[in-house]
Amino acid sequence: MLREVDVAIIGAGSAGLYALSQVRRETENYVLIDGGELGTTCARVGCMPSKVIIQVADDFHRRTIFDREGIGGADALGLDKAAVMEHVQDLRDTFVDRTLGVTDGLDDTHLIDGYARFVDDHTLEVNDQHYRAKAIVIAAGTKPIVPDAWQSFREDIITTDEFFEIEDLPASVAVIGLGSIGLELGQALSRLGVAVTGIDLLETVAKLQDPVVNKLAVDVIGKEFPLWLGEAAQINKTADGIRVSVGEKQVAVDKVLASLGRRPNLDRLGLENTSLQLDDKAVPVFDPETMQCGSSSIYIAGDVVLDRPLLHEAGHEGRVAGYNAVRQSAVKFRRKTALAITFCDPNVSTVGAQLDALDVSTIAIAEMQFAPVGRALIMGKNRGIIRVYVNKADGLVVGAAMACVKGEHLAHLLAWSIQQGMTVFDLLKMPYYHPVIEEALQGALYAVLPELDVTEETVELEKI
Amino acid sequence: MLREVDVAIIGAGSAGLYALSQVRRETENYVLIDGGELGTTCARVGCMPSKVIIQVADDFHRRTIFDREGIGGADALGLDKAAVMEHVQDLRDTFVDRTLGVTDGLDDTHLIDGYARFVDDHTLEVNDQHYRAKAIVIAAGTKPIVPDAWQSFREDIITTDEFFEIEDLPASVAVIGLGSIGLELGQALSRLGVAVTGIDLLETVAKLQDPVVNKLAVDVIGKEFPLWLGEAAQINKTADGIRVSVGEKQVAVDKVLASLGRRPNLDRLGLENTSLQLDDKAVPVFDPETMQCGSSSIYIAGDVVLDRPLLHEAGHEGRVAGYNAVRQSAVKFRRKTALAITFCDPNVSTVGAQLDALDVSTIAIAEMQFAPVGRALIMGKNRGIIRVYVNKADGLVVGAAMACVKGEHLAHLLAWSIQQGMTVFDLLKMPYYHPVIEEALQGALYAVLPELDVTEETVELEKI
Repeated sequence: MLREVDVAIIGAGSAGLYALSQVRRETENYVLIDGGELGTTCARVGCMPSKVIIQVADDFHRRTIFDREGIGGADALGLDKAAVMEHVQDLRDTFVDRTLGVTDGLDDTHLIDGYARFVDDHTLEVNDQHYRAKAIVIAAGTKPIVPDAWQSFREDIITTDEFFEIEDLPASVAVIGLGSIGLELGQALSRLGVAVTGIDLLETVAKLQDPVVNKLAVDVIGKEFPLWLGEAAQINKTADGIRVSVGEKQVAVDKVLASLGRRPNLDRLGLENTSLQLDDKAVPVFDPETMQCGSSSIYIAGDVVLDRPLLHEAGHEGRVAGYNAVRQSAVKFRRKTALAITFCDPNVSTVGAQLDALDVSTIAIAEMQFAPVGRALIMGKNRGIIRVYVNKADGLVVGAAMACVKGEHLAHLLAWSIQQGMTVFDLLKMPYYHPVIEEALQGALYAVLPELDVTEETVELEKI
Repeated sequence: MLREVDVAIIGAGSAGLYALSQVRRETENYVLIDGGELGTTCARVGCMPSKVIIQVADDFHRRTIFDREGIGGADALGLDKAAVMEHVQDLRDTFVDRTLGVTDGLDDTHLIDGYARFVDDHTLEVNDQHYRAKAIVIAAGTKPIVPDAWQSFREDIITTDEFFEIEDLPASVAVIGLGSIGLELGQALSRLGVAVTGIDLLETVAKLQDPVVNKLAVDVIGKEFPLWLGEAAQINKTADGIRVSVGEKQVAVDKVLASLGRRPNLDRLGLENTSLQLDDKAVPVFDPETMQCGSSSIYIAGDVVLDRPLLHEAGHEGRVAGYNAVRQSAVKFRRKTALAITFCDPNVSTVGAQLDALDVSTIAIAEMQFAPVGRALIMGKNRGIIRVYVNKADGLVVGAAMACVKGEHLAHLLAWSIQQGMTVFDLLKMPYYHPVIEEALQGALYAVLPELDVTEETVELEKI
């Protein structure tokens, strides 16, 4: 049994669906193969439901400022944790339903329910059926990492794939792994009254490389719940739960939330039957500007590449892979300026180049602490920092890291500015309304002017 | 008594202080003349304290979503209105103190306490002292309009200059004039439990010209408190308060909040002694790119010109006026892209060209309703709209109007994009994180593509 198709896409998640959108402009002779439950990681267990629980947690937490504002009765507020989770799941279901629109419209000659395995570079086997494809897109996604050593108490571990299914919140949790999702859920659970201990092997949270921004984020968030950083956790099953130890510190918890990262769904794909070269994480080597794997007709996109596990990047990569999968030779596309946001409070965001990619002797750092920012004071969110990395030679803005209220919006402004190649002088000519958090960025840019090798006579004004 | 100076600045508000910052780069032989209380309109009675009361009102209003989110006890929340106003005044005082930094540092040869009056184009009289100046900057500001007919019950009228001084909130208020400050304070007072009736002679609020955006704003805000639009109000003093009538509707209120706009502080300046030409509002005719009045050595800046009564525009105009006041011939500077934000909920914002300045036959309108925007749904703020005005011929973005949550941030993104001459295609190549409100803008831009005369093969992707 052999079926010939133009394109086979492995995985009907975000990247696969974006690839499909490009493929369908050129051909209807394709298959989209997915063996799991339909619906994207983003909508089911990622970006979307996490934002719902964060919203509830932030709304509940806001009561801590009520007394200062003249609002009484905050002590009477209480949580129905099961109702919170029901609300999260209701909205999650809405978002998942939306992602099913495309696959719902596909018949079973186009949408194949099963797991694909490479026979060779052009052939896949799914449910004993062979598909010979001119091009193949791997968009197989990822699954949460659970260390082998934890399997003996697997029932006490909650992964982020499982978290949004629980019906009530545990009384105490150790969150192990403080990347974006761990930090977001840890803070949200803490604000919802769960006794949270946050743990990471690294000294940093949310993948921050900037030590100044990291310090502020750790200081502020660490006041809400303990952050144990820089050492590995030991986990032991006890009679009535789990004991987590880090050095001399230890805590007894009901559950461990494992947010240690995700591993690519590549182990069952039979990549050994292809010509593809694999990197040290066993991911096929690919060109990020074409998403082509080597010189093969195989393209790859989305979280599975372990590079930028973000919805908008999965969209970009999926489009590029799909575009190239239906063309004779691969076209190069410019990557978007890097943009990553952790929706904790304060928001932690990074944009463009980070310190590991920069020669620090050639850059000046535009810094603004939030304490004097009027709007932040009004919001009661006056602990924050913006650091913008600027080429000393020409004032070009090349990157930024920040931990501050409304950082998600500042990050967009900066990402768009960097993608357009703007300098500090260009940015200072833009309008900044008053009073807005964007003025903090303006303050940072002013502060860096004396450190640059270049200057302008009328910094904020553009002569005609 | 005649003193010769290089520059005399009339008014120590925001525009005057920005002008001074430019003047002092060139000369210390200046006078800054102000007869009123020091501190800017923005910090004392404008942008800043209004944001404080809005913040409290929004925080208190948020309880209306608590039940949906699983948060109980919202009914127990209550307001101490005097404590609210004390909080507003505390922060207001902080902001005013900050604006006094510059003037506190000036001795009485530089800072003149008194009201200036022109003797001729180069001469001012203040407290019987004459100042002969090579250049003069008028930055005299504005004061609230109170119609003559209302003088008989002046004690029942609160202007926005007086509002932030009151110690307790009245039980009922008619807000007359629904521009930015009227709409902001009206909604905030309503959310704080004051019985508010909003009234405007126009059918529009917040100076909106876009009828679709205006309709949504009026619909949503009008559900919180009555908006009586399109007819003039009749006001009568009664035994126990004020009766306000609009057509057949009438309401008895404790106070009237007059937010009818502001008039320029020009009537005592003796402009009749100068060569300046006045426009139909008795404001000197000036060049908005130089801030020069005719060919005189008199410059003008800030709210007094009645053009863009916004802090950041006062900053721009003050800098331009100050720069040119110390130079032989006036230099032209490009105006910033127009940007106006009313911080009501939903935010009402306008950016760039509005419908009155556009030939609607040449533009397409990129529209996005907020109902399907995921993040808006999560926030419980899913009534909103963005409308972006795009040149059909080339896809250039020329303006926008919106009423939506977080509109203040979208307005910055759009203003910066318009100032840089970006097209729809340029904007769609930028990163939009997920899930963020910025995606609503992305949705609007996609929706307009079929209406344009131009297209691109890879809209979101940029070939290298």
